[in-house]
Amino acid sequence: MYRVGIDLGGTNIVAGVVNDRHEIVAFAKCKTACPRPSEEIVADMARMTREAVKKAGITMDEVKGVGVGSPGVCNKDTGVVERAANLGFENLPICAMLSEMLGKKVYIENDANAAALGEFIAGAAKDVESCVCITLGTGVGGGVIIDGKVFAGSNFAGTELGHTVIVVDGEPCSCGRRGCWEAYASATGLIRQTRRAMEEHRDSKMWNIAGSLDKVDGRTPFEAMRAGDAAGKAVVDRYIYYIAVGLINMINIFQPEVLCVGGGICKEGETLLAPLRKYIDAEQFSKYSEKKTKLCVAALGNDAGIIGAAGLVE
Amino acid sequence: MYRVGIDLGGTNIVAGVVNDRHEIVAFAKCKTACPRPSEEIVADMARMTREAVKKAGITMDEVKGVGVGSPGVCNKDTGVVERAANLGFENLPICAMLSEMLGKKVYIENDANAAALGEFIAGAAKDVESCVCITLGTGVGGGVIIDGKVFAGSNFAGTELGHTVIVVDGEPCSCGRRGCWEAYASATGLIRQTRRAMEEHRDSKMWNIAGSLDKVDGRTPFEAMRAGDAAGKAVVDRYIYYIAVGLINMINIFQPEVLCVGGGICKEGETLLAPLRKYIDAEQFSKYSEKKTKLCVAALGNDAGIIGAAGLVE
Repeated sequence: MYRVGIDLGGTNIVAGVVNDRHEIVAFAKCKTACPRPSEEIVADMARMTREAVKKAGITMDEVKGVGVGSPGVCNKDTGVVERAANLGFENLPICAMLSEMLGKKVYIENDANAAALGEFIAGAAKDVESCVCITLGTGVGGGVIIDGKVFAGSNFAGTELGHTVIVVDGEPCSCGRRGCWEAYASATGLIRQTRRAMEEHRDSKMWNIAGSLDKVDGRTPFEAMRAGDAAGKAVVDRYIYYIAVGLINMINIFQPEVLCVGGGICKEGETLLAPLRKYIDAEQFSKYSEKKTKLCVAALGNDAGIIGAAGLVE
Repeated sequence: MYRVGIDLGGTNIVAGVVNDRHEIVAFAKCKTACPRPSEEIVADMARMTREAVKKAGITMDEVKGVGVGSPGVCNKDTGVVERAANLGFENLPICAMLSEMLGKKVYIENDANAAALGEFIAGAAKDVESCVCITLGTGVGGGVIIDGKVFAGSNFAGTELGHTVIVVDGEPCSCGRRGCWEAYASATGLIRQTRRAMEEHRDSKMWNIAGSLDKVDGRTPFEAMRAGDAAGKAVVDRYIYYIAVGLINMINIFQPEVLCVGGGICKEGETLLAPLRKYIDAEQFSKYSEKKTKLCVAALGNDAGIIGAAGLVE
């Protein structure tokens, strides 16, 4: 049998057909195209499901069920997305709607939780019982698996690991707080830190690399560092430290077997991981424990959300 | 049947006999008197157990088992305290040692976890399935109950909630990091903040209240505030804000049904709780969720550790 996993994002709707070995055998993808009515978005999710199934060369009869990873607060008991601000969803009974369109049982989970479940089922954390997965993207997302199950708190709004303050009175965050980890360790945070450093260092190579402040992206300071630019290196060093501070917080809280870090920044590989490991070794509360959390890079990339969403289907 | 709970602290060893209604029917207490050999400490734990049992007017035959709440990393599977720095324990097989002395099965858990379990069994969180308990004392301790069970991470070193950084590059912490929540929200942190404010405000009533910098305690700024002292009020306001920042972090992570706050500072009651609730209402990620974490004060005080430790006995 097959399962369909849908990764619903602010930019794209991606449906994937997943086989029993947790491999994606076919994809279908369209733009989310927000803002538009939620009914249209859900109709496109159903359309992408059928299209992916067709591409896989199977029929809907061979699909056991459909899982959805959605932004926001997703109540898996009721099948309702209680709130997903960037999609404009409020108390949307997404499972019932999709189920009626597809004639299949539909399951829901928060997208960061679904990605964590994907890494747990078939990725970087597949041989353990507990893991924390952090995605460093536009924001900072977190998913936690405890005793083999997604942990989402009593109201399904839990493990917003990016929305924990690491700098009291710090940078404003999209959640309304100041100084959240997300405001420092996300690509958005890195870009802000890079622009500030460029304004302070008019002679930095970052100006040549980016061209202008508008064109700065997450790679700018890394490229400058590799070109021997001191200001670029300082931005990278500080950014990695901000990531480390939050990762160590999560180890001190959860002590998972595996701490898995994903997102675009992970393409930097050891440039990122080596200093992170050094900070973690020095600062974690469990530095004297025999059993320590293993830090690793997410293995499934963007597929984690689809494989995890498919894994919701029982 | 009865159970014995032992609260092993850096200052006192307290054993309590607990009945089936989770009530303590007798206590025995002696000084921990560190530093001294761990064998002597364990022998005193056995002695206090027998003394409490005698005071309760029962015999050891009526005791089902003994539970211990100890500082440090406590491996409940092996019965070993892997490390408790303030007691000088390293890989101490405390359950085997006590069991041999008492002829009873002995269970171990970290002291903050045991206190959380106590509040969960018989205190402020007794009618829920998940809670986070924070103790604001000399340090900041945390215990987490998920689905009715103590959560301590894969290596039993977890939920060190006080050792999460809220101020990058902030005050030094006993754990080796800088800027931990504990360094700001503990009584130790409050005393440091109070002393600094006194040095900055030589005319503050805090000088009259404490007498000198050496005699400052956690009550000093609260008393000054009540006497109309602006510097005292500023210290209290800021201290409560530091507490709130960490509490909101914990809500955003765990979304427990109940968040229970204990420790000496809780005697301030609504002086503390009213502003905390205001911060939580404004800043928590789940501010739009129907189901929110309930903030309350720990109900069992120092008894929580004993009742929780006794509750470890199966």
